Amino acid sequence: MRTVMTQLPNTPTSADVARLAGVSRATVSYVLNNAGTVRISEPTRRRVREAARELGYVPHAAARSLRAGHSRMVLMPAPSIPVGPLYGAFINELQWALGRLDYTVVQYGSGGLEGDEAARAWAELRPVAVLVPGAGLGPAGVQVLKRSGVRAVVTLGPGRVDGAHALLMDHDAVGHRAGRHLYERGRRRIGVVMPAEAGLDAFSRPRLAGVRQALRGTDATATELPLRYTEEDAGRLAGRWRESGLDAVFAYNDEYAMLLLRALQDEGLDVPGDVAVIGADDLMLGRLLRPRLSTVHIELPSGRCLAELVDRAVRDPAAEPEVHQVLGATVVRRESS
Amino acid sequence: MRTVMTQLPNTPTSADVARLAGVSRATVSYVLNNAGTVRISEPTRRRVREAARELGYVPHAAARSLRAGHSRMVLMPAPSIPVGPLYGAFINELQWALGRLDYTVVQYGSGGLEGDEAARAWAELRPVAVLVPGAGLGPAGVQVLKRSGVRAVVTLGPGRVDGAHALLMDHDAVGHRAGRHLYERGRRRIGVVMPAEAGLDAFSRPRLAGVRQALRGTDATATELPLRYTEEDAGRLAGRWRESGLDAVFAYNDEYAMLLLRALQDEGLDVPGDVAVIGADDLMLGRLLRPRLSTVHIELPSGRCLAELVDRAVRDPAAEPEVHQVLGATVVRRESS
Repeated sequence: MRTVMTQLPNTPTSADVARLAGVSRATVSYVLNNAGTVRISEPTRRRVREAARELGYVPHAAARSLRAGHSRMVLMPAPSIPVGPLYGAFINELQWALGRLDYTVVQYGSGGLEGDEAARAWAELRPVAVLVPGAGLGPAGVQVLKRSGVRAVVTLGPGRVDGAHALLMDHDAVGHRAGRHLYERGRRRIGVVMPAEAGLDAFSRPRLAGVRQALRGTDATATELPLRYTEEDAGRLAGRWRESGLDAVFAYNDEYAMLLLRALQDEGLDVPGDVAVIGADDLMLGRLLRPRLSTVHIELPSGRCLAELVDRAVRDPAAEPEVHQVLGATVVRRESS
Repeated sequence: MRTVMTQLPNTPTSADVARLAGVSRATVSYVLNNAGTVRISEPTRRRVREAARELGYVPHAAARSLRAGHSRMVLMPAPSIPVGPLYGAFINELQWALGRLDYTVVQYGSGGLEGDEAARAWAELRPVAVLVPGAGLGPAGVQVLKRSGVRAVVTLGPGRVDGAHALLMDHDAVGHRAGRHLYERGRRRIGVVMPAEAGLDAFSRPRLAGVRQALRGTDATATELPLRYTEEDAGRLAGRWRESGLDAVFAYNDEYAMLLLRALQDEGLDVPGDVAVIGADDLMLGRLLRPRLSTVHIELPSGRCLAELVDRAVRDPAAEPEVHQVLGATVVRRESS
């Protein structure tokens, strides 16, 4: 076994800075935490900043937020499933917009905790606001957050949660648009791809429900088609296609649609002659295929609007929760349907 | 203007819990922070936990880490550019692996801060370890982090930084493999796509250098081809292809390669007859095109190995920094080259 004398650099404290600058610790704290209420001369401020730099002293955000009673931290649970390019761009924009309003975004990896249990872990960090994508957080979780001092809880998901602001993202609408489009194109036996990958249920179930709703009261049917995102599995599904009698498919999103479209073509089926195919997300790559892929274009809320909602909510935590419908879904018809 | 009486729920304190449970505040702290060194009876523990639940009390991670002098937080700057599926999966695995070792991963959106300035903002959160992808952090930044109490700094990038553990990700190798492959396929006038999108320089520059290195001392040339990720720009580039005289292209990654391949075909050029095309990343979608896309398969380090390095480094902060070469790059030849 190895034994090493651990020699860490001594962590400088605000007392060290005060000593070097020849001022009180309170003055150090006022200067470095930009407390605007206290009048301190520019030369003193400079002396404190130089001493801090020389010693390598950095104020402690946790200590500061303990004193101030709140932080500027906006916490988001980190997604546990790989995010698509659409969602990735949304997070980037949101981060930028909150940064401009002087918030710091922290994506928190809960590592297996879910729902209200996760809320307890988030609360321990004492963020000023929490943004929760997806379902899972309940009213009890919202209460845990609020009692710990969180001023704004905003959910982005299918429904409202008591006490939280809600940006309603209605994935039913995505399936509904796709189902109606295929029906209007004369299709009656419609397959709906359900990804076998974990974590996508939260999106695929409401999309399927949307297709079903669009076909209700008609002579058309919707059939679930489980599919793993592999060429082998797509080949298997395409190999059974003729006996299934399906004449159309809503393939969950563009990636699954591109995979299945190729497998259907390799099986000798004509798209859209034998099978109409539509995806969702409007990825650029779908336009590069032949036939070009039809898709449901999804519009996420703008990061700027969401950042402004967070700021409004933080400033007035007692205001009535806002509810906004934010997901836009429109069919972009190309050659595959 | 709206005026609202702000009525926040009273945030319960550990004193409230102590009063309700009929114990001292110290006992509350011992029980809720799982201090194993103190002997407290099971009925007392239960009484404290029930009181905490009833009141909705959550311990304060910041206060706890102030007392303990360190945290279990591993901080990573959140990427400011959209991450690809490869990197997204890597982050997820890393988060999971660190979670199993009882660390909490926090992705921190620095909002425009860069390099050693960003290090100061990270240090304020007093993480126990910091993982920095890309270049930008210098030795001064590492010192700021260490002096604030960070026990391990690990960089994932092109080079070593004094005082930090390094996982060397050598993007030159990706370009080198692509360049050598095209040369071996008999190509002599090789285009190299340079994405015009911000933030990708850190990858595209070394990849270009790798191609140049592979061609050094031969009769082949490498030509930079700026390209925006739009159909219009790809069409423009393809429209000028014949006069350029280029007989091959390394297209930065598979997404740019797929875009350009389609534009070249639409321009009536034969791939690979007139132009050989190779991408990088080995995305599944590349296999769905005809001709199937050749690519450089990139292997990132496993999240588990990286988590173990972090843990090792946290336990022994005085140990010599470890240096590992972690990026694997191998050509997967398909039909496009």
